[in-house]
Amino acid sequence: MQFFYSNNIDDNFIILEAQEMIHCVKVLRKKIDDSIYVIDGKGCLFHAKIIEIHSNYCKLLIESKKKSKRKFDVHLLIAPTKNHKRIEWMVEKVVEIGINRISFLICKNSIRKTINLDRLNKIALSAMKQTQNTFLPVIDQCIPFSEAFKLINSKEKYIAHLQSKDNVLLNNCLTQEKSKCILIGPEGDFDEDEVEYSLAQGFIGVSLGSSRLRTETSGIVSTTILNINNG
Amino acid sequence: MQFFYSNNIDDNFIILEAQEMIHCVKVLRKKIDDSIYVIDGKGCLFHAKIIEIHSNYCKLLIESKKKSKRKFDVHLLIAPTKNHKRIEWMVEKVVEIGINRISFLICKNSIRKTINLDRLNKIALSAMKQTQNTFLPVIDQCIPFSEAFKLINSKEKYIAHLQSKDNVLLNNCLTQEKSKCILIGPEGDFDEDEVEYSLAQGFIGVSLGSSRLRTETSGIVSTTILNINNG
Repeated sequence: MQFFYSNNIDDNFIILEAQEMIHCVKVLRKKIDDSIYVIDGKGCLFHAKIIEIHSNYCKLLIESKKKSKRKFDVHLLIAPTKNHKRIEWMVEKVVEIGINRISFLICKNSIRKTINLDRLNKIALSAMKQTQNTFLPVIDQCIPFSEAFKLINSKEKYIAHLQSKDNVLLNNCLTQEKSKCILIGPEGDFDEDEVEYSLAQGFIGVSLGSSRLRTETSGIVSTTILNINNG
Repeated sequence: MQFFYSNNIDDNFIILEAQEMIHCVKVLRKKIDDSIYVIDGKGCLFHAKIIEIHSNYCKLLIESKKKSKRKFDVHLLIAPTKNHKRIEWMVEKVVEIGINRISFLICKNSIRKTINLDRLNKIALSAMKQTQNTFLPVIDQCIPFSEAFKLINSKEKYIAHLQSKDNVLLNNCLTQEKSKCILIGPEGDFDEDEVEYSLAQGFIGVSLGSSRLRTETSGIVSTTILNINNG
């Protein structure tokens, strides 16, 4: 089943643009009256018929619509790795596994303070289609650590850090609560003040196990564990 | 803490060769009488002093030895992905997370039937050092599906496949048993006969969740879940 994406959808019609239009009309050679599947990234899957093909967009008539319920509510806040390729890989993987939102943190020990948001959005879109999920995660630009807390609406809040040996294992403190977030620090871990500030904000300090994981691996492992209760 | 690897170790001496020797002597400019950490990939960490430097090896005197117990016993049997880069990435990640053995399967629906074992071993070695684990996993060459069962000694045995909607979630069938293995199929899943044969051999059919994961993501997710009871 081939999925296309559009964020230009009203009650009756869908406009397919840019890469999605090229892929549909030029690569797959779909024609007027052909029906295709379109997702809006917000939980809806449409079956729609091509009714107009123009040079840079095509117009579809919606034939049916199916709304799915989000099974997870996971927010990953992570310091980007020095090597951008590793972030890209991580984004692909966490989107496959299940994520609502990814925010990139600028921490005291951060080496990288920028990301290529356009590229990451493209990767997320492609991973969403791969998994046949209908939800596209929000990806935020890099934001200073102290400002990131404004973005958080989750009920269960965790910070994975190495500064305490008493941290519980993430998988041992999960509840049935569906709305969860986790903070993952840069190579070199969070600064002491950052950990203290998070704990004061009600975050629970957790460990991801005895292995010293790379930053992007921590992102993948924690997303896997936070999804465990979601079926 | 910088780790070096050697498999040439007796009661008193360690020989450091090839890349490990070059990294120690040429890159880090270690000299006679300097002490370094060496791991054998079988659970031992040595503190040892450089006593001889030759053109293609150096000899170390062991000063102390610490043996650690393996915390996990996870065997991943997986069909290699068409794109070798994806296998490489997966090997790095599962070694970080915790794995004893990786075997590559040739299935009925397999597209790729070979791997670059030398390259994968190098990646595993580097990931082992990264995590500061002292165990190096065994990586097996590609082997036909039917012959792979000879390699399995695990007590808990799973096969992740898409052919039954009744499959339980992997994380819901874990026990305290430490010795576990899982079979992951190629793009296009296992063949019906392969699933049937596995079930007849006592394997439990499992699901990794509702997302349609790529092969290498399934390898990472299942390794994460199988490690959960191991602390």
